[in-house]
Amino acid sequence: MKIALAQLNYHIGNFEANTNKIISTIKEAQANAADLVVFAELCISGYPARDFLEFTEFIALCDASAKQIASVCQDIACIIGLPTVNSSPEGKDLYNSAYFLENGTVKAVANKALLPNYDVFDEYRYFEPATDFHCIDFKGQRIALTICEDLWNNIDDPLYRTRPMDVLIQQRPDLMINIAASPFAVNHDQERMEVLSYNAKKYHLPLLYVNHIGAQTELIFDGGSMVYDAKGQIVDELDYFKEQVAYYNIEKIGVKEVSIQGEKPFTPDVSRMAKIEQIHQALILGIRDYFKKSGFTKATLGLSGGIDSALVCVLACGALGAENVMAVLLPSAYSSDHSIKDAEDLVKNLGCMSQTVAIKAITNSFENALEPQFAGLPFNIAEENIQSRSRAVILMAMCNKFGYILLNTSNKSEAAVGYGTLYGDMCGGISVLGDVYKTQVYELANHINREKEIIPQNSIVKPPSAELRPGQKDSDSLPEYDVLDRILKEYIEFRKSSTSIIAAGFEEAVVRKVIRLVNISEHKRYQTPPILRVSAKAFGMGRRMPIVGKYLS
Amino acid sequence: MKIALAQLNYHIGNFEANTNKIISTIKEAQANAADLVVFAELCISGYPARDFLEFTEFIALCDASAKQIASVCQDIACIIGLPTVNSSPEGKDLYNSAYFLENGTVKAVANKALLPNYDVFDEYRYFEPATDFHCIDFKGQRIALTICEDLWNNIDDPLYRTRPMDVLIQQRPDLMINIAASPFAVNHDQERMEVLSYNAKKYHLPLLYVNHIGAQTELIFDGGSMVYDAKGQIVDELDYFKEQVAYYNIEKIGVKEVSIQGEKPFTPDVSRMAKIEQIHQALILGIRDYFKKSGFTKATLGLSGGIDSALVCVLACGALGAENVMAVLLPSAYSSDHSIKDAEDLVKNLGCMSQTVAIKAITNSFENALEPQFAGLPFNIAEENIQSRSRAVILMAMCNKFGYILLNTSNKSEAAVGYGTLYGDMCGGISVLGDVYKTQVYELANHINREKEIIPQNSIVKPPSAELRPGQKDSDSLPEYDVLDRILKEYIEFRKSSTSIIAAGFEEAVVRKVIRLVNISEHKRYQTPPILRVSAKAFGMGRRMPIVGKYLS
Repeated sequence: MKIALAQLNYHIGNFEANTNKIISTIKEAQANAADLVVFAELCISGYPARDFLEFTEFIALCDASAKQIASVCQDIACIIGLPTVNSSPEGKDLYNSAYFLENGTVKAVANKALLPNYDVFDEYRYFEPATDFHCIDFKGQRIALTICEDLWNNIDDPLYRTRPMDVLIQQRPDLMINIAASPFAVNHDQERMEVLSYNAKKYHLPLLYVNHIGAQTELIFDGGSMVYDAKGQIVDELDYFKEQVAYYNIEKIGVKEVSIQGEKPFTPDVSRMAKIEQIHQALILGIRDYFKKSGFTKATLGLSGGIDSALVCVLACGALGAENVMAVLLPSAYSSDHSIKDAEDLVKNLGCMSQTVAIKAITNSFENALEPQFAGLPFNIAEENIQSRSRAVILMAMCNKFGYILLNTSNKSEAAVGYGTLYGDMCGGISVLGDVYKTQVYELANHINREKEIIPQNSIVKPPSAELRPGQKDSDSLPEYDVLDRILKEYIEFRKSSTSIIAAGFEEAVVRKVIRLVNISEHKRYQTPPILRVSAKAFGMGRRMPIVGKYLS
Repeated sequence: MKIALAQLNYHIGNFEANTNKIISTIKEAQANAADLVVFAELCISGYPARDFLEFTEFIALCDASAKQIASVCQDIACIIGLPTVNSSPEGKDLYNSAYFLENGTVKAVANKALLPNYDVFDEYRYFEPATDFHCIDFKGQRIALTICEDLWNNIDDPLYRTRPMDVLIQQRPDLMINIAASPFAVNHDQERMEVLSYNAKKYHLPLLYVNHIGAQTELIFDGGSMVYDAKGQIVDELDYFKEQVAYYNIEKIGVKEVSIQGEKPFTPDVSRMAKIEQIHQALILGIRDYFKKSGFTKATLGLSGGIDSALVCVLACGALGAENVMAVLLPSAYSSDHSIKDAEDLVKNLGCMSQTVAIKAITNSFENALEPQFAGLPFNIAEENIQSRSRAVILMAMCNKFGYILLNTSNKSEAAVGYGTLYGDMCGGISVLGDVYKTQVYELANHINREKEIIPQNSIVKPPSAELRPGQKDSDSLPEYDVLDRILKEYIEFRKSSTSIIAAGFEEAVVRKVIRLVNISEHKRYQTPPILRVSAKAFGMGRRMPIVGKYLS
């Protein structure tokens, strides 16, 4: 038996595109003499379709796509994922299902039992957990088909007492197939490998695992589909951040053993990507898919001469092509000469478009208009924010006039402590660095410059500044970023208390200040763009906080 | 036995304030010779505490508060709600619990089984469902204590096969107590009455039900705690939108019957509030608590002379006092004279503060600055948005200088179809009307004017316009609001397909246009302020949509 794993990029709710892509892959696999093609979890609808799943019509369109795909499965079988109706009067309306399609029809259905409902996941909002599990016989082999977390069981989610594989193994399957929708986060590829290897070994069965690739707004699916043999040893690992179809031959050897072999040679671990390059690739894919799936091609951003906007500009050029990126320099009275030069050097290095729009006359006009109200009061954050917001108005006017999407350039450290202007530098269609700490911004910049200077060295080495008043430096208001980022990580990612962070050796006053800033900035983060998620705990849909909550603020 | 129901306003994570309020209520009840005081679900932490529940320290603070409260429960008992640790190695980390406190200690614990995980609710994200249920004996009466949805069972949430009351009734209780956190939505009071009456009758037991009052950002808890006798007839209904403590005498009459009587006379239905007045009160409470719980006292808003901003201004004055409301008139070249006059008349009627800041010089300075980029291109949405965004910059500068919170004035109809400028009129700390359709805005305005003209009649009767270009009217781009709102309601609240909305008699082209506008505006709504929720389906946390989703867009 020859099985194709299809690791593809889907688009939520784009039934035509998803269905066409699946059908053409089936035909390609058929031309390559495959017996079975395996697609990812909820590939028909895209993942996560969120509250679209509450629309009866949406579910009907999924069903129609499945019928269309079934009709081409004549001399080849395929596995697809889609939401299906729970026809029992009991329980939630839907199942998260896998269809086994053969001879133009649905030969078998597997429903998901272990529904993630933490961090960015809300599956229990929509789906009824399955309680029945049956293997599927195909071409003399018995397949144990599961969906994503149903095989995620060396880590402990003890909520669910029935583990699907513990039922399926009683039916003596020959191999396991798991279809998944597992988004990228740094280190998550390692976790996946451990879980998959553990399961192959535990059940002593070969395992084929298919993931999505492609970004759906904030969630970036990195692919990395994998195949393991019955000893838990890796047979193949598909590309990360790329579509790929790969083929495997499965053969019975003896009564109980099944061999699995890829068509192309594979040497484990040789080509594994460094973590920083994973983040780099993830962000590029995140930008590219946000534009493509929104029907846009061109980006704009404000280029300050600082490291954050420089990095976003490089990533945007990587994602969209330099010819589609418009960098706008928006100097004010407080911009230093070197800032403008650094920005201009970057534009030269990248070959993107650029414009310069000075904001001094604009901020003057605001200050004149507000003179009766502000008379006699000292310059403060009000005037600082007028600068940042004037820049945003210009950038958005460029978007409205020319069809750009504005890229947000705030990093995770700033977003955490509210160091940014709402409706000013916190604007944008998508936040590129909102899940990248400032210390990681430096790491990425150096990574990008590893062969030649793309980001001007001066942007990297100078002290960070918002340049909203003379001589301003980030370190006037915030701890140094290496300290700040370590405190933030303890609080945001590990949910440690101030007491335990202080006990770990950080200065008490600094810890209390940082945590207070994080908590009182919820109202700002609420109104900022969706953030490309690259960590296990990003701001946005995966971290849901009350806004008027008082705790530690 | 005398039982006090305490319907109070809590603040998420404000342990000191919540605990002090609970303790002083216990002392007050003791002075009134009560035997038992009943507080609402999760009153210690406030509801919903969201991801604060993932912090070990937050849970420890809940526990510390409970101990403090227990220490005052010497000659009086009380029921409080709080998250508690699930000590079993299986299942999620927490329970949603009720403590029965007596003699300075926790006498009994009831955990919640039926955890809502739809619309605005995410309880399954945090809590393990309970499986054990035990009545509590107190002063010769046996109490069946349940938490919110555990008694929400004439509507069908068949996911959960164990209904706590079906177990508890086997233990032959004398009365039922249900502690809840049930947010306001129009008509929800009626649903609650039906469910509670149904349960009292079904189990043939008196029922005491306690709800929260007070707003937690978008969720507004309306109170309306209730008491039913064993026939399912209402004995008392507490105030809506107000704190209240009420007392009831419970006596055994015969072997199986228990009588329940309030201390004050109650005549059902006489004083029930009209729906429009419910919305009116809800919005005032929503504004007031947003400010109070954020530590702010003063609001600002842009007053255009139109009905939406006029209504928000009236509500703000009602919530915060006219002396704390600063209306800012921001006329442009396209503002009509009558608009300015209408705004000025409203300010006079309300007695709030006002300022006028003309934006013409500012928009000119933007247009001058962008002249090289925009040369030769026609006036379009770019210039329209510059006006709206210039106003936002001024309003936010006023906030930054004087400590106001900006009130957003967009209504639900506009928010639905994206008829508004992101970072312009879509700004604000809280959206007052974002869950109020335009047709309801008119209804509210007329309701407010029912005794005398507060909102100038001209603001109500003139054709709605954004006044961003000469002679602009909302009806140039949108269907008439009575048609629009009916289509929106079908799509947003009842999740009907375009096909079925068209079948209901609406024009096909209009329906398709409206639904397309709703879907392509997700990216705008994502970045707008939290919205005071008054309907069963509000934008925000209760409606979670993909941004790059293609479905019907």
